[in-house]
Amino acid sequence: MHTLNVALGERSYPIHIGRGLLDRVRLILPHLKTPRVAIVTNDVVGPLYLGKLRDALEAQGIRVCQVVLPDGEAHKDWSTLNLVFDMLLEQRCERSTTLIALGGGVVGDMGGFAAACYQRGMPFVQIPTTLLSQVDSSVGGKTAINHPRGKNMIGAFYQPRLVLADTDVLSTLPPRELTAGLAEVIKYGLIRDPGFFEWLESNIERVLMREPEALAFAIERSCANKAEVVAADETEQGERALLNLGHTFGHAIETGLGYGEWLHGEAIAAGTMMAAELSRRLGWLADADIARIESLFIRAGLPTVGPVLGVERYLELMSHDKKVEAGRLRLVLLKAIGAAVVHGDAPQTDIAAAIEARCR
Amino acid sequence: MHTLNVALGERSYPIHIGRGLLDRVRLILPHLKTPRVAIVTNDVVGPLYLGKLRDALEAQGIRVCQVVLPDGEAHKDWSTLNLVFDMLLEQRCERSTTLIALGGGVVGDMGGFAAACYQRGMPFVQIPTTLLSQVDSSVGGKTAINHPRGKNMIGAFYQPRLVLADTDVLSTLPPRELTAGLAEVIKYGLIRDPGFFEWLESNIERVLMREPEALAFAIERSCANKAEVVAADETEQGERALLNLGHTFGHAIETGLGYGEWLHGEAIAAGTMMAAELSRRLGWLADADIARIESLFIRAGLPTVGPVLGVERYLELMSHDKKVEAGRLRLVLLKAIGAAVVHGDAPQTDIAAAIEARCR
Repeated sequence: MHTLNVALGERSYPIHIGRGLLDRVRLILPHLKTPRVAIVTNDVVGPLYLGKLRDALEAQGIRVCQVVLPDGEAHKDWSTLNLVFDMLLEQRCERSTTLIALGGGVVGDMGGFAAACYQRGMPFVQIPTTLLSQVDSSVGGKTAINHPRGKNMIGAFYQPRLVLADTDVLSTLPPRELTAGLAEVIKYGLIRDPGFFEWLESNIERVLMREPEALAFAIERSCANKAEVVAADETEQGERALLNLGHTFGHAIETGLGYGEWLHGEAIAAGTMMAAELSRRLGWLADADIARIESLFIRAGLPTVGPVLGVERYLELMSHDKKVEAGRLRLVLLKAIGAAVVHGDAPQTDIAAAIEARCR
Repeated sequence: MHTLNVALGERSYPIHIGRGLLDRVRLILPHLKTPRVAIVTNDVVGPLYLGKLRDALEAQGIRVCQVVLPDGEAHKDWSTLNLVFDMLLEQRCERSTTLIALGGGVVGDMGGFAAACYQRGMPFVQIPTTLLSQVDSSVGGKTAINHPRGKNMIGAFYQPRLVLADTDVLSTLPPRELTAGLAEVIKYGLIRDPGFFEWLESNIERVLMREPEALAFAIERSCANKAEVVAADETEQGERALLNLGHTFGHAIETGLGYGEWLHGEAIAAGTMMAAELSRRLGWLADADIARIESLFIRAGLPTVGPVLGVERYLELMSHDKKVEAGRLRLVLLKAIGAAVVHGDAPQTDIAAAIEARCR
């Protein structure tokens, strides 16, 4: 087991990464305020791991209640969130009860937002069960639900007290989900860690084969990169925005198609190619860089072009982005592989051309 | 104009208290991040003051959008909150846009919670227009909506950047609302400021007549008391709980009758009498103390007994309170007039008897 610390002053917390952590509930106990826990999971992960976690906690004298949400981004909305509040109130959970989110990014985002809001904040522990959530949403405290007009529009910055990233649970992850998670893994290489990008170029097949050492290294390096960025900029006033490489384009894909059509990571891969293409048009990336990025995405099994929504529709959807400031779209672009910047001055014609070039 | 500072480190903010502040929008300008504002108000306050505020801001070059919510505690729910999100997204407000809540406690609580959640947090300014909101919700950053199973169950701690308490707007406040606000004013005397309690005993009629100096003094002294408590304990880990004198009983009255039947202050007055009666039974208050408290509430026009819901129903409703910890009801009680304590060991029979004695 490796342990990373996310350094956020009094909100600092550890991330444990390794095999078999779901069997080691004693890792959780020191982080509980009272011996009461409410588990939030979904109807895919629940049948696999809920009973095991619940039994292990109860064997330690912890009182456990739970709610099983419907799976999928399409359910990341207020009415599903309200199922969590209904359960917490029915079970008379207190603000000292700890909420554990057991599942992927959607469960983590909704569980975290519920924990942030219930009685104005209860302790929160995350057990991410997908590659994407282990490398992305487990670090940084972003929680949210979607609004029909935009993804993650309603949410909070709320830090967990502990994250357990058990690499063994990835054995039950469908291949498409593993691949989707790799989009964010590759992202860390692209935005700030060229050595990691090169490691991925040499080892992506080992990760896809789920070799435990390769998986653990990819997760740890991803979390370490994200933790450094978040520690420097918890509420995204500056550097943290770099983590959104490909996300403004990608969110447009997700919202434009309706949540759930494409997986988040798939949309981010296509969106990253749009951002890379725009960077090329601004003279920052060479054709060879584009080819390297595209090749790695393709080897990982990710899409490198977005759906044809029409350029106008892309621009319309992107204009709702949270990174719009004073009406200007601020995009994360690449100066080189391993060096991202936030740029607010890309000409509209270049943005449109980059989208056009990366749609089929 | 008097200015109080709420000392919360980097989240510190000023409260300006005085006459005619709604005409002085220049006080707001330094607190805006960008020249964009979204005003949240209701259908009672809006017709009186929205046009004036809007025109004054626009005259300063500020772009303004707005939403007018239905008035009343009965609407402090998710579907009404969503009207705010719908407007913010329709108008493409950014996370740098400032949300101004113009109205009473319900508008402040919902506007503040919307500001806390919209894109994970936008700047927030409060212009409270009732006595209750000027002395209570304007200090301390508690925001929330109600859940059918409990008041203020879903919310956040989120501090405004500025509060403008204009005493002139109280001239349009219905007498019942003014009186309800006095319940919280009297509370500050009861929990920690015996000198203020005595001042109120001498001056309550001047406040009810809305003499500007008396009003301003009562508001300032109330805010100063609350600001001191909040500065010492922002997220209610300890001392801040004292501000909830009468609230556990009072919330049971509000929830038991359905939101909107009794005003919050009215429920708090009756709830405070229950807490005082329980304190008497524990041997802390004398009969004469009870008489002084009851007399001041009666002179203010406040109820001193609660509705007959049945003692069992009171206890059931109170068991959902946010201050329940490890199953124990923690009540704010009085050791003396001017000295409150949190107490978790009151015998159930005494609690029941205190409720019984103060119901009609």
